[in-house]
Amino acid sequence: MGTQYKLALCQMYTIDDKKKNMETAADFVNRAAAGGAKVVSLPEMWNTPYDNSFFPRYAEDAEGPSVVLMADLARTNEVYLIGGSIPERQGEKLYNTSYIFAPDGQLLAKHRKIYLFDINVTGGVRFMESDTLTAGDSETVIDTEFGKIGVAICFDVRFPPLFRSMTDKGVHLVILPASFSLTTGPVHWDLLMRSRALDNQIYFAACSPARDVTQKYRAYGHSCVVDPWGEFCGMAALGETIVYADINLDYMARVRREIPIGFEHLGSGQE
Amino acid sequence: MGTQYKLALCQMYTIDDKKKNMETAADFVNRAAAGGAKVVSLPEMWNTPYDNSFFPRYAEDAEGPSVVLMADLARTNEVYLIGGSIPERQGEKLYNTSYIFAPDGQLLAKHRKIYLFDINVTGGVRFMESDTLTAGDSETVIDTEFGKIGVAICFDVRFPPLFRSMTDKGVHLVILPASFSLTTGPVHWDLLMRSRALDNQIYFAACSPARDVTQKYRAYGHSCVVDPWGEFCGMAALGETIVYADINLDYMARVRREIPIGFEHLGSGQE
Repeated sequence: MGTQYKLALCQMYTIDDKKKNMETAADFVNRAAAGGAKVVSLPEMWNTPYDNSFFPRYAEDAEGPSVVLMADLARTNEVYLIGGSIPERQGEKLYNTSYIFAPDGQLLAKHRKIYLFDINVTGGVRFMESDTLTAGDSETVIDTEFGKIGVAICFDVRFPPLFRSMTDKGVHLVILPASFSLTTGPVHWDLLMRSRALDNQIYFAACSPARDVTQKYRAYGHSCVVDPWGEFCGMAALGETIVYADINLDYMARVRREIPIGFEHLGSGQE
Repeated sequence: MGTQYKLALCQMYTIDDKKKNMETAADFVNRAAAGGAKVVSLPEMWNTPYDNSFFPRYAEDAEGPSVVLMADLARTNEVYLIGGSIPERQGEKLYNTSYIFAPDGQLLAKHRKIYLFDINVTGGVRFMESDTLTAGDSETVIDTEFGKIGVAICFDVRFPPLFRSMTDKGVHLVILPASFSLTTGPVHWDLLMRSRALDNQIYFAACSPARDVTQKYRAYGHSCVVDPWGEFCGMAALGETIVYADINLDYMARVRREIPIGFEHLGSGQE
């Protein structure tokens, strides 16, 4: 069990063509693994445009083609794959769901977005996920050979107690597939990601779709990784790219010793 | 009861001369009130250099000259005075304490710093407040004609649940007298102040001493006020100055409606 490993975030375009999105995702994950990443994340709603009118049509159940693809990509690349999110159909209900796979292709967990994106900013963005989606009801922490990793989705980030709870359970990293708007992104993206890392003295990674200016909803981009000191250790611009960052558990333990705010006993996050 | 009022933060030098510090504080508070402020704050440890070796000598009990001065300044200027902090002596113990006065000069509350500043950053700052000081044990929220205001001191800011608790009690503003170091200030000051405001959708104000490069402990300065959207609405540089900001309860209520994250029922913070 090493104290350092490489994380990759796949900032890809997500267009109105599921088959093409699947090809893009496969290409990104294969390249990220070839680049040395042991944990790879896709962005929020990676198989569909981020738009309520598309979610029902793009939704899948547990045997859907996007889910099968993600299992295959984890297995063939021998990586932990945080499957961004896709619209999940279960009976009459749809969820914004992240499927999470082990390096052997087994499903480790799925996270259903807990806090739906329902905002209405004067002169800015209006979006009501609850028009089509149902909220999840539980936090998601997985066990890996590197230690515990938490997963949450986009608007979940605005609820600090969720991340404090994960931290108390021993996560050293939280991965947040997220598609922020151009209203909130410029003022809140950096601030939220950095503060979740600093307040919990963990690594915090946010994986956005690339910004497609031809779409109705334009993602903020700027996929990033923040270290436990609250500084960026990886950051994308707007276009398609893979963000790599080294996750160093010794560094996390050092920060927790130097500024003791209650996480010292959690050490490096390894057990 | 108006929905808007003016806040002032007094960023003053704090030198090894209590009498001079008292004259400086009086001058700043008088000027802030003349400038229209209804709520005025002094910085952390305003009557002493920020140094363990000075705290015992500068400490006062409830009848000390700095305490009497603050009561007089509140009364004569008819302002709520958040008295930054001074070393408080009670029996054998010393505390880092903020005395808080009503416009009639009555003591409303005192906040004893809960989380002492004990850090040891490699190649950076080492400071152990616990060498001389004892920690407080309770959160401080005062009632004013403008609504509830929370008070905490410096390192307290690194503990988010304290501010969530204050927010759940209905504060619209937290004032944090704070003397950050030149190690943590450049990377953490803006981030911490902005995230406490954004996460709780409140106004958050931090009042630092001015930076005196001749002293052993040099304060970061940059006293600031952040609005409930997470943006600065007032910010100092390094030297002596008064930072003014308009606290607008209607704007807070609007932010809470536009991005509903659980504080909508608290409305404007007024009862």
